[in-house]
Amino acid sequence: MGNVANDVGDVFGAHRVLEPPGALPQAAWRVDNDLLRVFESELLIDVETLNVDAASFRQMEEATAAEGPEGVVRLVRETVSTRGKQHNPVTGSGGMLLGRVARIGSARSGDVATVGDRIATLVSLSLTPLRIDSIGAVRAASAQLDVTGQAVLFATGLYAVLPTDMPERLALAALDVAGAAPQVARICQKGDAVLVLGAGGKSGVICAVEARSRVGASGLVIGVESHAPYAEDLRALGVCDAVIGGDARDPLAVRAAVLAATGGREVDRAISCVNVEGAELAAILCTRDRGTIYFFSMTTSFTGAALGAEGVGKDVDMLVGNGFAHGHAEHTLALLRRETAVRALFENRYG
Amino acid sequence: MGNVANDVGDVFGAHRVLEPPGALPQAAWRVDNDLLRVFESELLIDVETLNVDAASFRQMEEATAAEGPEGVVRLVRETVSTRGKQHNPVTGSGGMLLGRVARIGSARSGDVATVGDRIATLVSLSLTPLRIDSIGAVRAASAQLDVTGQAVLFATGLYAVLPTDMPERLALAALDVAGAAPQVARICQKGDAVLVLGAGGKSGVICAVEARSRVGASGLVIGVESHAPYAEDLRALGVCDAVIGGDARDPLAVRAAVLAATGGREVDRAISCVNVEGAELAAILCTRDRGTIYFFSMTTSFTGAALGAEGVGKDVDMLVGNGFAHGHAEHTLALLRRETAVRALFENRYG
Repeated sequence: MGNVANDVGDVFGAHRVLEPPGALPQAAWRVDNDLLRVFESELLIDVETLNVDAASFRQMEEATAAEGPEGVVRLVRETVSTRGKQHNPVTGSGGMLLGRVARIGSARSGDVATVGDRIATLVSLSLTPLRIDSIGAVRAASAQLDVTGQAVLFATGLYAVLPTDMPERLALAALDVAGAAPQVARICQKGDAVLVLGAGGKSGVICAVEARSRVGASGLVIGVESHAPYAEDLRALGVCDAVIGGDARDPLAVRAAVLAATGGREVDRAISCVNVEGAELAAILCTRDRGTIYFFSMTTSFTGAALGAEGVGKDVDMLVGNGFAHGHAEHTLALLRRETAVRALFENRYG
Repeated sequence: MGNVANDVGDVFGAHRVLEPPGALPQAAWRVDNDLLRVFESELLIDVETLNVDAASFRQMEEATAAEGPEGVVRLVRETVSTRGKQHNPVTGSGGMLLGRVARIGSARSGDVATVGDRIATLVSLSLTPLRIDSIGAVRAASAQLDVTGQAVLFATGLYAVLPTDMPERLALAALDVAGAAPQVARICQKGDAVLVLGAGGKSGVICAVEARSRVGASGLVIGVESHAPYAEDLRALGVCDAVIGGDARDPLAVRAAVLAATGGREVDRAISCVNVEGAELAAILCTRDRGTIYFFSMTTSFTGAALGAEGVGKDVDMLVGNGFAHGHAEHTLALLRRETAVRALFENRYG
């Protein structure tokens, strides 16, 4: 490999932080991506595909609209060159990657992969030291870029061995939002009315399907999706009691449409999967007193949610969408295997 | 009053939004603060004191450090002139105000105040249309400005009639963080180990006191406070098992100090009340698997929390600090009446 290991390193990756001192890799402005020098607690990966966070990819597309597809390639190169990781400085988000295990540090334990296995990282690119040697195809629909290069995971960095019973790009797309389904399962009860904002996108579809299976026939699942083809895909899945073609940035219109669909009932749980800013209040206005809102979207504004709920006097519990939950990869892959219509949709869209 | 009412207006205040169309007042860039024209669902207030959000006040002080106290006055004037509300464009946060009821719209119902009563608003200044006529004293220690002017509350805008058994500025300071105590009470159980970051500040002290009363003698309450005089105040209250003088922006150092104080036990609940950015990971690293983190601080970064937890593989529930909870004003005032040492500290510091 030519890689030289000289130390164990920190379990959280503090040994790779260059700026500012004392930060951990996600919070760091810049991390060390010299991967010829590796640490014995690290897992070294030969990278094949970057699966960029949807909000980040959209921001890069919009910022470079005049350049065409090359604009995103340029920004990814700039970001990785400046920060040592694909950590979008505007959105703050990353994504994940697919590759092959190149080296397993001698101080690691509990690895389920062996050298040569194809894996997907389950921690954000925003904390993953990455060196890019070349960039190949860019697939805007799935926010993916084929690259050659290397990356490392720290001792606390999660990953999944790619399943052999589905296309890798499909698995990667699903694993990118693996935290969503198990957390929806935790908060939704039988009979609940559930609202999913951005319900036709990747995490939105998974949340709507999971919610349906939890609330049962006595519950309600309402989807809001502004992109007409995605709304149509969602209707075709048949998991929602209603699919509303609205814009989540218009809270009063969304509230009116949702109440019309539920017969005037505010929802027990709202799940926000939108990829635009300014959707906090739509979720808040639709949720009942003491209900729960799960913000999975990386475009969520903390103050927008906190002050928005206070401003309209809504006593709701608002959860930050943690990308990790125990067993999340297995949970989400099992959902795809069980729900063949969802799998077919995802293969068509992201495969 | 000279005020002319010509319409009922929207319960959420949509009728006062100027930019962008369709937004609600908190999300709006600019609201209509022409208060000579009022609406029948509005409560008109003659304003006496602005209680600015701590993170906002600190940002304004730092941005105008060269100007002295006049710098904050200038920025408040600019913000209200530009946006029609004291909505800090950098921090996104507001604060609350104290004043006297000037007019109760004819379309309102359920008001507990009558004209002339002194009230404190319980919704953020970031959504409260405000006109400032003059600014008097500025009290940096309590982040308060004495002003003359007017403001309005919408039908969903909460307020509290000021109690007569304590100084008004004390009540205002406590009501500003009224959401904290009842929510700490909800998440803390007997025997829990609880960490409070920024535990010597206003919301931090209240959270530490509430946590102590919930976890009981079998539980642990650990405070982290970087400002030495505040740490000393907190020690003197005697509610914490340990007060650590650390900086919440250094997650590894905080984790080491907290584990030393708990005998190696990760905490069940962490509550973040810091007024600086970059403290998400300290809370995450100290909290046990499936524990709960409550982010009250308006400096919290949504992506910092979401990706930070995922990045270190922590399956924790992270809550956005909603400023509103049922009965929050009564709950917090009762705490101050019961805890005479806290009341004395707050009178000394904020009164």
